[in-house]
Amino acid sequence: MKKFINRLDTLLDESLNGFAKAHSDIIELNSEPHFIKRTKPTPTGKVAVISGGGSGHEPLHIGFVGTGMLDAACPGQIFTSPTPDQMLAAAQAVENGGGVLFIVKNYAGDVMNFEIAAEMLDVPNATVLVNDDVSFPKTHSTGRRGVAGTLIVEKIVGAAAEQGADLATCKALGDKVNLATASLGVALTSCTVPALGKPTFAISETAMEMGVGIHGERGRATIPLGSAAEIVEQLCHTIDEELKPQKNQSVLLHVNGFGATPLMELYLIYELAAQFWQKRGIHIARSLVGNYTTSIDMAGCSITLSLLDKELLSLWDTPVHTANLRWGC
Amino acid sequence: MKKFINRLDTLLDESLNGFAKAHSDIIELNSEPHFIKRTKPTPTGKVAVISGGGSGHEPLHIGFVGTGMLDAACPGQIFTSPTPDQMLAAAQAVENGGGVLFIVKNYAGDVMNFEIAAEMLDVPNATVLVNDDVSFPKTHSTGRRGVAGTLIVEKIVGAAAEQGADLATCKALGDKVNLATASLGVALTSCTVPALGKPTFAISETAMEMGVGIHGERGRATIPLGSAAEIVEQLCHTIDEELKPQKNQSVLLHVNGFGATPLMELYLIYELAAQFWQKRGIHIARSLVGNYTTSIDMAGCSITLSLLDKELLSLWDTPVHTANLRWGC
Repeated sequence: MKKFINRLDTLLDESLNGFAKAHSDIIELNSEPHFIKRTKPTPTGKVAVISGGGSGHEPLHIGFVGTGMLDAACPGQIFTSPTPDQMLAAAQAVENGGGVLFIVKNYAGDVMNFEIAAEMLDVPNATVLVNDDVSFPKTHSTGRRGVAGTLIVEKIVGAAAEQGADLATCKALGDKVNLATASLGVALTSCTVPALGKPTFAISETAMEMGVGIHGERGRATIPLGSAAEIVEQLCHTIDEELKPQKNQSVLLHVNGFGATPLMELYLIYELAAQFWQKRGIHIARSLVGNYTTSIDMAGCSITLSLLDKELLSLWDTPVHTANLRWGC
Repeated sequence: MKKFINRLDTLLDESLNGFAKAHSDIIELNSEPHFIKRTKPTPTGKVAVISGGGSGHEPLHIGFVGTGMLDAACPGQIFTSPTPDQMLAAAQAVENGGGVLFIVKNYAGDVMNFEIAAEMLDVPNATVLVNDDVSFPKTHSTGRRGVAGTLIVEKIVGAAAEQGADLATCKALGDKVNLATASLGVALTSCTVPALGKPTFAISETAMEMGVGIHGERGRATIPLGSAAEIVEQLCHTIDEELKPQKNQSVLLHVNGFGATPLMELYLIYELAAQFWQKRGIHIARSLVGNYTTSIDMAGCSITLSLLDKELLSLWDTPVHTANLRWGC
């Protein structure tokens, strides 16, 4: 296994310490239990927006803590849900009279542990469940997974909370963004989970995994490696069928890398995806291209489309000041 | 070769088109010849700051065009210098009475082609040559290479130009930053140049390349894969010997990934590097961690240290608004 690492059992701590040190102007790390929170206290009456999940997806979620986005994030061990005491401690640290909104990716472990924390928390709280991955049918037994669309939910809900929206409004807004968002991913390689020390699955030089999640698992099908145009056609077609954007609809187009895919390739994918929807008369109002929701060192990418109305567009544009997403301030 | 690609001969165009489309609020692409320039015209009398080099290092340089940094960037083919007509056309497009400052990484092809462009250009111009890579001795026949420190030169000189510094001042400032900056990199894998279709060099699972550049070449030595602590000790020690920062010296610490290294590992490297200098009483005033100067899909990283005085710190902090580096605006 070729990684920059000292010991498996200190990897996460050393990395979180570095993250906290590099961004001490924005966030701070609580060590027992682990959570990242803003250095600035939550304003009185503001909804505290909290997310979290297994580590290995950086910059999601810790890189999105700061003004205009998350109040706190709880990192679990790699690809492992954080524990309820993390969410509870984070909520108690940042809640300041406005209640708590949890943003949770739809995975059994995350859902269960955030639910336990929500039950133990003695302040008003609500949960937005993100399930934007359209590689599964809607009727799948465990439901669809939360993937790169989570960033968009976090940005837009975070902006509304910053502007003073109350808990019910933030919850409804998060559900609205989630419904208006669809993602689909493809992997060219597996990733290497440090504790395993080798790639999670074997894949030939001429194959790819279509419909992957963000935990180094196989996708819904192993198919021959296609050209970028063929890959984008398949990803965009599935997303388009799901969201059915109408002509002149404004959208946010997000091309996300899984960690080991160069920007040059991500921008090429973006160009082809933009052409796909522009040909259909869709207005690409906003774009985001980069490695934001990663699967450790997987080579691959996902495309996410969010339908935008004036409200969502305006909230997307409001200033955000986090370690890994920043504009307007 | 596993890449998102259609054809070798359209790869760069498709990617640049996507980049220009995704960031049309900041930059625009000129296609014949290729350069990226700001959408906003250069203010009258402002020094036009221009860089460029082979593609495959993204976001360097195109991702740093915008207010507070570069006026234009010239992307060559992958790992291939841009041609003089690109630099000349870019200079003619953005120069507006303040002259042109070229920021050039020290590679034979880049140096030659920028020199030809400078000779052909009929407005006042100067060149800052960046050679921050301390893997070579100072006496190396072709001199030291320009690597991740280039970003720091571009940011600080770009800020000064934006504030109205004249050409001679910008040139002197660039040389000053370059002299105050040292970088050293290590690779765990090679990268795959699309035209070659396979990794540039073979390396065993238990070895690493110490002292690599950013073109997928071998380093100054192939050595056994070490722990992160051992790697950081070696990188930091060499840089420290070069710059000899004194106690209480303020520095910028930049940990740069080569394209395929996850943020989790880069922050771990950052933590260890920060400890190295903090133990010596050095003040880490500013930090930058991420994949900024890449070598396509190489797994590896470099550490860069810049000595900061009040002037450099202030210029680093001024607002910058580019596709891939943004703060304060």
